[in-house]
Amino acid sequence: MYEGAVQDLIDELGLLPGIGPKSAQRIAFHVLGADSADVTRLAQTLQRVKEQVRFCRICFNVASEELCRVCRDARRNESVICVVEEPKDVIAIEKTREFRGKYHVLGGAINPLDGVGPDNLRIRELMQRLAEGTVTELIIATDPNTEGEATATYLALLVKPMGLTVSRLASGLPVGGDLEFADEVTLGRAFEGRRTLDV
Amino acid sequence: MYEGAVQDLIDELGLLPGIGPKSAQRIAFHVLGADSADVTRLAQTLQRVKEQVRFCRICFNVASEELCRVCRDARRNESVICVVEEPKDVIAIEKTREFRGKYHVLGGAINPLDGVGPDNLRIRELMQRLAEGTVTELIIATDPNTEGEATATYLALLVKPMGLTVSRLASGLPVGGDLEFADEVTLGRAFEGRRTLDV
Repeated sequence: MYEGAVQDLIDELGLLPGIGPKSAQRIAFHVLGADSADVTRLAQTLQRVKEQVRFCRICFNVASEELCRVCRDARRNESVICVVEEPKDVIAIEKTREFRGKYHVLGGAINPLDGVGPDNLRIRELMQRLAEGTVTELIIATDPNTEGEATATYLALLVKPMGLTVSRLASGLPVGGDLEFADEVTLGRAFEGRRTLDV
Repeated sequence: MYEGAVQDLIDELGLLPGIGPKSAQRIAFHVLGADSADVTRLAQTLQRVKEQVRFCRICFNVASEELCRVCRDARRNESVICVVEEPKDVIAIEKTREFRGKYHVLGGAINPLDGVGPDNLRIRELMQRLAEGTVTELIIATDPNTEGEATATYLALLVKPMGLTVSRLASGLPVGGDLEFADEVTLGRAFEGRRTLDV
C-alpha cells in the first residue's frame, strides 16, 4: 500500500474498464512524474466531458449541442435509419463513408443474462421516429454476436407491420482475411450470403 | 472523430502509458455513462496526487510528508540500504516482510539507449548517504534485466573503495515454477547460485 493520495489514485484508476491493478499503478506513477499542466488538463477534460457532452435528442449519439453532428446535417438522407448499439459504432460506420442516412443508437443490445431487455434500450424512441412516416428503410447494424442478432430479430419483428425495408449488415469473410483461418460460423454465413458474380 | 470534449478526453487518455486508442475510447465512454460524483472524485484525486505527493528527501520513495513512511520509522535498521529502481519496487519488497532496513530509490536504471546515464539517477544522493558512515551493508535490488544488471555492476564498483558489504538479490527459479519452463539464462543462474543443503 502506498501513502495517501497515490493509493487513492491507484484505487480510482482501477475502477475504469480494462485497467487492472498493475496498469493503475503504472498510470499513477506516470501521473506522479508528469508535468503538472498535463495532469490538470486531463482532470479538467474529465469533468468537461461530464458537463458538456450529452446525447442527441433524436438519435442518442454523443453530441455537444442538443442534436448530434449527423442529425444537424441537412444533407443526410432522412428516409434511412441505421440502428447501432453504441456511439462508437456510429464512428466506425462514418469512417466507411458508405452511409449517408441517419442513425439511431440503442444504447446496447438485448442481453437477458445481464438483465438488459427491450425496455432498457431506446427502442420506444426508435418506434416514435418511425411513426412519423419519413423513414422508409431501416438498416440494422447491431453487433454480429448472439445479443446483436437477438436484438436485430426483435427489431425486425417489431417493425414488420410498418412495411419498411429492413436489412441487416452482411456477415462473411473479412476483406484481406485468409479463408483457412475463418471460423466455421463465419464461413457458413459467407456461403449462405454468397452473391452471383455478374461478369 | 467524436465531437468536442469526448475526442479531447480520448486524446488525453491515449497519452497515458499502456492505454491505446481502443482503451482510451472505452474509458471515455465509461466516463460518459458514469456517475458525475465518481468522475469528479477521479479528477480531484489526479490533481491531489500532483499537489500532495512528493518524494522522500532521504530515499526518494513516494511520501506525503517530507520523509516517507520507511524513513520516518525509527524501528528500521539504519545500517542497511536496499537500492531499488522505482517506488513500486519498495512496495514489492515491503510485502515480503523480509527486509527491515532502509531504501534508496534510484529513479530508473542505466540505459544508454534511452539516454539514461548515472547522472540521471539518484546515485550522487546515495553516495552522500553512504558517506555519512552509518551504513554498513548495501543490497542492490535493481531489476534482473540488462539495465538493472549494468546499474548493479556500476554501483558495486563505485562503492567498492568504501569497504561495505555489497550484495545483489539472488537470481534463480521462481518458487512454485516448473524447471522445464525456465529459460536457459534463469536456469544457468540457478546452477551458478546453487546452495549446499545442510541436512
